[in-house]
Amino acid sequence: MSINRLKRQIDFIKEVDKIKHIFRQTLLINGSRNENDAEHSWHLGIMAVLLPEYSSDPDIDVLRVIKMVLIHDIIEIDAGDTFCYDEKANLDKAEREQKAADRIFDILPQDQASELRELWEEFEECKTSEAKFAAALDRLQPLIHNYNTNGHTWKKHNVKSDKVYERNRVIKDASPLLWEYVKGIIEDSINKGYLER
Amino acid sequence: MSINRLKRQIDFIKEVDKIKHIFRQTLLINGSRNENDAEHSWHLGIMAVLLPEYSSDPDIDVLRVIKMVLIHDIIEIDAGDTFCYDEKANLDKAEREQKAADRIFDILPQDQASELRELWEEFEECKTSEAKFAAALDRLQPLIHNYNTNGHTWKKHNVKSDKVYERNRVIKDASPLLWEYVKGIIEDSINKGYLER
Repeated sequence: MSINRLKRQIDFIKEVDKIKHIFRQTLLINGSRNENDAEHSWHLGIMAVLLPEYSSDPDIDVLRVIKMVLIHDIIEIDAGDTFCYDEKANLDKAEREQKAADRIFDILPQDQASELRELWEEFEECKTSEAKFAAALDRLQPLIHNYNTNGHTWKKHNVKSDKVYERNRVIKDASPLLWEYVKGIIEDSINKGYLER
Repeated sequence: MSINRLKRQIDFIKEVDKIKHIFRQTLLINGSRNENDAEHSWHLGIMAVLLPEYSSDPDIDVLRVIKMVLIHDIIEIDAGDTFCYDEKANLDKAEREQKAADRIFDILPQDQASELRELWEEFEECKTSEAKFAAALDRLQPLIHNYNTNGHTWKKHNVKSDKVYERNRVIKDASPLLWEYVKGIIEDSINKGYLER
């Protein structure tokens, strides 16, 4: 065992503790407070364990999906959480996140830095079955939270249903079955007044 | 797709949101507050991605380890967090947790309820390589946090070093290499006055 190798791994493990301080726009389901990136990523991990049967790719690699969702927000330690419906903040999002990835993943030994960086790039590019399914879970989880908190984040930021449909469209390709469920939630949110058409 | 099946999966996904409200004795590394079970479980997931090379079993199934650490504290929604050094609370811990497991895992469709229940039982029994490694991570993470918060939890509850050695001994079997690192941390904690001998 190389002491330097383990030291870098532990340094990374300590560094990523900071995502517990990065708060998202989404409320916890009981509405008491916003959730943070560690909680969100854990929740996606559970969903990745339970829902792969709905993937449009029957050969999806579940371990890759889980790794992807666990690490996908680590770059927000430096880049912050960019609200998906904030068009201005999204203009320089990619640049901020690339810079963050350079610093944070490189804390790890080279082979693991490359592995996690590639997983994160794959998630961002959203082309493989695993990346699409991970992205679908990353959309579905806040949708469930918003639906169960009477549309809190949509109302707060005056988000309309066409934007929600657009944001969630990746689910259609990743999982036509979950997309049916999602359309039902969005329409029910409109009917209940959680979301404006 | 059975609508009833998906409904049960979504009900479970909503139910487990509650572990974001279960707080542990451990502080976040910046010392600002206690961490909760979702954050802790996410952190173990990251460690399970990075550290399997140190397992004493070279054929360890990483996906099983990750699933185990992601779900291992779900029963605390009903059973609460039992502080590992609280001897009285540990007397009825098993009974409280079995009852919690009965209710919570059974929200899922039968096949997934069984899969997760068996994973959790395997973790608790701590006999397989995967369960031992998951348990080792579950010890190592709070040790890193305690060490980096000047022994906060040890001091607060007047925990002595022999108890810390006893609590962490599972690491020795799961990973002799990580055990060397852990012994170093414990001895350094004693030397620095974070932990009483």
